[in-house]
Amino acid sequence: MIVAKIGGSRGVNLEAVCEDAAALINSGQKLVIVHGASHATDTLAGELNHPQTTITSPSGHTSRRTDARTLEIFTMACALMNQRLVAGLQRRGVHAVGLSGVDGRLWEGERKAAVRALEGGRTVIIRDDYTGTVERVNAELLRTLLGAGFSPVISPPAISTSHEPINVDADRAAAQTAAALRAESLLLLSNVPGLLRNFPDESSLVARVDRGGLEEAAELAQGRMKKKVMGAAEALNAGVRRVVIGDARRGRPISDALAGAGTVLG
Amino acid sequence: MIVAKIGGSRGVNLEAVCEDAAALINSGQKLVIVHGASHATDTLAGELNHPQTTITSPSGHTSRRTDARTLEIFTMACALMNQRLVAGLQRRGVHAVGLSGVDGRLWEGERKAAVRALEGGRTVIIRDDYTGTVERVNAELLRTLLGAGFSPVISPPAISTSHEPINVDADRAAAQTAAALRAESLLLLSNVPGLLRNFPDESSLVARVDRGGLEEAAELAQGRMKKKVMGAAEALNAGVRRVVIGDARRGRPISDALAGAGTVLG
Repeated sequence: MIVAKIGGSRGVNLEAVCEDAAALINSGQKLVIVHGASHATDTLAGELNHPQTTITSPSGHTSRRTDARTLEIFTMACALMNQRLVAGLQRRGVHAVGLSGVDGRLWEGERKAAVRALEGGRTVIIRDDYTGTVERVNAELLRTLLGAGFSPVISPPAISTSHEPINVDADRAAAQTAAALRAESLLLLSNVPGLLRNFPDESSLVARVDRGGLEEAAELAQGRMKKKVMGAAEALNAGVRRVVIGDARRGRPISDALAGAGTVLG
Repeated sequence: MIVAKIGGSRGVNLEAVCEDAAALINSGQKLVIVHGASHATDTLAGELNHPQTTITSPSGHTSRRTDARTLEIFTMACALMNQRLVAGLQRRGVHAVGLSGVDGRLWEGERKAAVRALEGGRTVIIRDDYTGTVERVNAELLRTLLGAGFSPVISPPAISTSHEPINVDADRAAAQTAAALRAESLLLLSNVPGLLRNFPDESSLVARVDRGGLEEAAELAQGRMKKKVMGAAEALNAGVRRVVIGDARRGRPISDALAGAGTVLG
């Protein structure tokens, strides 16, 4: 079993992802695809005149400010990207089924009642944010579908313990999913070649991180990469054998990551 | 097994639908919900400055003009309404799973290569429309989910035989779904009390239509009601015992329709 998370950032070639994923699935590989839709959400929010902002937590993590309207926009952008992947896989003979983390309460977590954010050097509390972290994967739905020959394609949002859809980080959700399915490999693919020693210098790729090096890797990581390294560590700690942070812009992004292209952790 | 189609028109109380559906499902009734999102599509299209138009076929049927952008807008509006129903059911203890007709190629049909439309008394041909009719329900996905205790909530689009998402009439798709699942009852619920003898006079409700009266009913039907009567006839011809065209605005819309409120056909 492989869980591959495909970033929703600009530059990712969805047709190449579908081609590569379908070749693997059609050769008998069990593969669950997880995706985000960050770039599409920004575009749709612009078209709907709902400007997007980023929250920086006191510990330096950045995330999308998710008010109720942004959650709707994010849900719609995810649904459209999900349908593209599902139809693209079907065109290549895969029995793909699209899901969000809400379906079957697949991705469950607590909604943050109060989000702490740095604003101009001060810490402020935001109370109308719809965000959280996946704490539990109800994998029965995935096992049911995989067992019947269907290939799940999953996107946020997740569902809160009080039954509200919430924005969650898809890298960490993919990590939890890989752990719940006891996957051998988790692939976190986006529009960078992997973890970079000197971001954004793509020639400074870190090829290997062993378990002892996870803390150092977390310190190297900048911006969105922080959550990928955090997800990788969570997956490894939960029993996933290997995580590859790789490049979704490649011609065969999944196969290449499986062959070790990118940063291999574990 | 019951298939209940909930209209996407204005005035439908989704919370009441969820409350009623959950009570039935939690008491052991197998229930598949199908829904549209016509009103939400119009709203979103307005917000995105993509005005919607209606096509009238030479035989007098009206449908949404679905260019590529409208299909995207329709997909997004359906996804948002789907998530509301799924989360609303989950809040009431139902293991709901949202699907579109694309997932698992659940609703399959041919895309119309050329749509004939009346414009100012002339018949014109439209070639960039993404519409079709569900000709095949691949019910294996539904049976898999129902067998594992999940409750499917399904919306358009469907998937074409050439793997493109297409807009389909959700009433007729629900009828095909009821036939494929060998449902006893198909409920087509929207913002009217049922088939009206003198549209829009709601006191002129036709309470019963037997199989011999289907042609007359089709002649009485105005606008959107034409497709409901067509769907009802298709379901009855395919072995569904009873179809009720009823009112989704009621406090217990599904239970009331099962108890005979609306137009009972069969």
